Amino acid sequence: MQPDLLDRVQTAHALQQFRHLSPLVHCMTNDVVQTFTANVLLALGASPAMVIERDEARQFSAIADALLINVGTLTRERADAMQAAVDSANAVHKPWTLDPVAVGALTFRSEFCQQLLARHPAAIRANASEILALAGMPAGGRGVDTTDTASTALPAAQKLARQTGAVVAVTGEVDYITDGSRTLMVTGGHVLMTRVVGTGCALSAVVAASCALPGDRLVNVAAACAFMAQAGSLAVAQSQGPGSFVPAFLDALYALGGEVRV
Amino acid sequence: MQPDLLDRVQTAHALQQFRHLSPLVHCMTNDVVQTFTANVLLALGASPAMVIERDEARQFSAIADALLINVGTLTRERADAMQAAVDSANAVHKPWTLDPVAVGALTFRSEFCQQLLARHPAAIRANASEILALAGMPAGGRGVDTTDTASTALPAAQKLARQTGAVVAVTGEVDYITDGSRTLMVTGGHVLMTRVVGTGCALSAVVAASCALPGDRLVNVAAACAFMAQAGSLAVAQSQGPGSFVPAFLDALYALGGEVRV
Amino acid sequence: MQPDLLDRVQTAHALQQFRHLSPLVHCMTNDVVQTFTANVLLALGASPAMVIERDEARQFSAIADALLINVGTLTRERADAMQAAVDSANAVHKPWTLDPVAVGALTFRSEFCQQLLARHPAAIRANASEILALAGMPAGGRGVDTTDTASTALPAAQKLARQTGAVVAVTGEVDYITDGSRTLMVTGGHVLMTRVVGTGCALSAVVAASCALPGDRLVNVAAACAFMAQAGSLAVAQSQGPGSFVPAFLDALYALGGEVRV
Repeated sequence: MQPDLLDRVQTAHALQQFRHLSPLVHCMTNDVVQTFTANVLLALGASPAMVIERDEARQFSAIADALLINVGTLTRERADAMQAAVDSANAVHKPWTLDPVAVGALTFRSEFCQQLLARHPAAIRANASEILALAGMPAGGRGVDTTDTASTALPAAQKLARQTGAVVAVTGEVDYITDGSRTLMVTGGHVLMTRVVGTGCALSAVVAASCALPGDRLVNVAAACAFMAQAGSLAVAQSQGPGSFVPAFLDALYALGGEVRV
Repeated sequence: MQPDLLDRVQTAHALQQFRHLSPLVHCMTNDVVQTFTANVLLALGASPAMVIERDEARQFSAIADALLINVGTLTRERADAMQAAVDSANAVHKPWTLDPVAVGALTFRSEFCQQLLARHPAAIRANASEILALAGMPAGGRGVDTTDTASTALPAAQKLARQTGAVVAVTGEVDYITDGSRTLMVTGGHVLMTRVVGTGCALSAVVAASCALPGDRLVNVAAACAFMAQAGSLAVAQSQGPGSFVPAFLDALYALGGEVRV
Repeated sequence: MQPDLLDRVQTAHALQQFRHLSPLVHCMTNDVVQTFTANVLLALGASPAMVIERDEARQFSAIADALLINVGTLTRERADAMQAAVDSANAVHKPWTLDPVAVGALTFRSEFCQQLLARHPAAIRANASEILALAGMPAGGRGVDTTDTASTALPAAQKLARQTGAVVAVTGEVDYITDGSRTLMVTGGHVLMTRVVGTGCALSAVVAASCALPGDRLVNVAAACAFMAQAGSLAVAQSQGPGSFVPAFLDALYALGGEVRV
């Protein structure tokens, strides 16, 4: 079955909802991408907050609208706090999203991610190698790189979606978003974005935020991918390299939807 | 009593002193804003250093000219190190500044901030919701957001200043800086700055640095707010959104006072 | 003996190798410079990965092509993980590089760096004060600042190189790179780079990556310094201050060697 392209009307509607609701996103993410993740969420109109101590994380994930778990610079202490936050979010039916950075390549985080899969993630966002590893299929990743294309990992993503109940987004130059039966496709990724740290991690944060929106979660997660792809295309066109890409990208996210707001 | 506007001559004089003395600032701050905080201090001519291990933090806060305590991504281990640093700074009469990020919303940091209030902060810099929470008054904050304006929190700021002996800066689109009897006002903040992570946290670092200057601490802290507001206004005028704001803001801080230094 | 200037042909050849091999660099670095370090490596074509939990760090440093140890925001837990990673890298003959941030000024990290010196670093990159402190000579540093020029520290760097077997780069407005018998010189540093946090730390990451290249390590490490100096000069010419320097610098690193790749 051919995946459907997410249409512009759906994206525009999701963006309007996103800006209107301004989801408060509890980000438990890696040390490398915290600033960029926060700035991406702020540019789109969401409210990021990073809370990491176990008791506070438990308390805050019940207050926030959505929770992001990114295992990029995992420690044992952080893993404990993440588990507490996930359980707390689940207890009050707040959606949480998993970004399984470099799963497969490293034992501790691979075991941790497998444990988390049983805790009902609302969404999973990863590259092809990570999705393959998470689904227990052979992958070509070497740390955070992916040597597989998103389409290769689509069957694994669909399997993972059926197994966990999550919407799974496997992203690359083309993104596939699936709930196990339906699959959407988002185009517009650019290779320059792989030369900027945190574009994938920040996308996971936007996916997490989009899980707080009402309506069809598959469409909302795909719309999150579309926000980033659209802003990415605009920013690539205006930048001279990966350095100037970053401010241009944040400006484009802020201006998305035609509103000039400065 | 109507607050007085800080005048341009006082700001210019404080800036000159700031650049001349180049305060070494020991920043114990949250993981999200470390880079931006360091770059703001460097652009203004100060020397930032982030030292976090307890024994080193104790050692370094006696060497540095000023200490910043920002509880944004607090952990129990970090709280211990912060207490050691505060005690060490106090022992040699070095000023320390508190940024009580998200106090009120989260129990562990709220208790920690209350303990710190008894340890003689030189300054406290926060948004309205945080100042209200710190002073034990009802606030509308939801995490790091503020739903109160700075003027609403001015009585709480004045009470807090009298109670602790600190200069208290409650900041927003207008900033109020008070020592409990006198109050200064700084204008020029812009809503775009709320779409960039770390502008408030970086201001706290500049406030911390300004506490190392000779002269009237109330004026020096207000001047720190004025540096950021002036550079912010210049940067907003030159930027297309929150992404291009960041480099423009750092350039403006660097050029502040009319010196072209590149 | 007068140091030799690294020539352009050697630099161009090293850059070509760097881009072709795309070294996977395990960065154990400080919290302040992680994003910038990752973006510098990505712009040059390398693959950064930050892995910090002890068991994962041990596992990953055997997979990666090179390891960076930067003690900027050292904790006891991080020091343990770093030692495990160094031992693991040594066991499989992967090169590791030391950046001894603020060594000399602070006791815990000074003792830690001395222990590490016995573990066969491939390279050491530091400013003059740090090299003097590491070699047990009196230095003028106050935290991360250097009050000494690189040439003052050249004898200490040469001694350190002979003692440890490492290539030692002591950097400033002029960089000296020595293996204890031969010394190379790289010019082109600019004072504006001292107003941007992480330029030295990011250089250490590029040095770490360059140790994975085949050929003469002294030349490869000097070439790493030359990449940064060349991109720095280009970026200074195009920027209005330390804020606009950052994107211009990353763009220049990406474009280095005349290839227009966007």
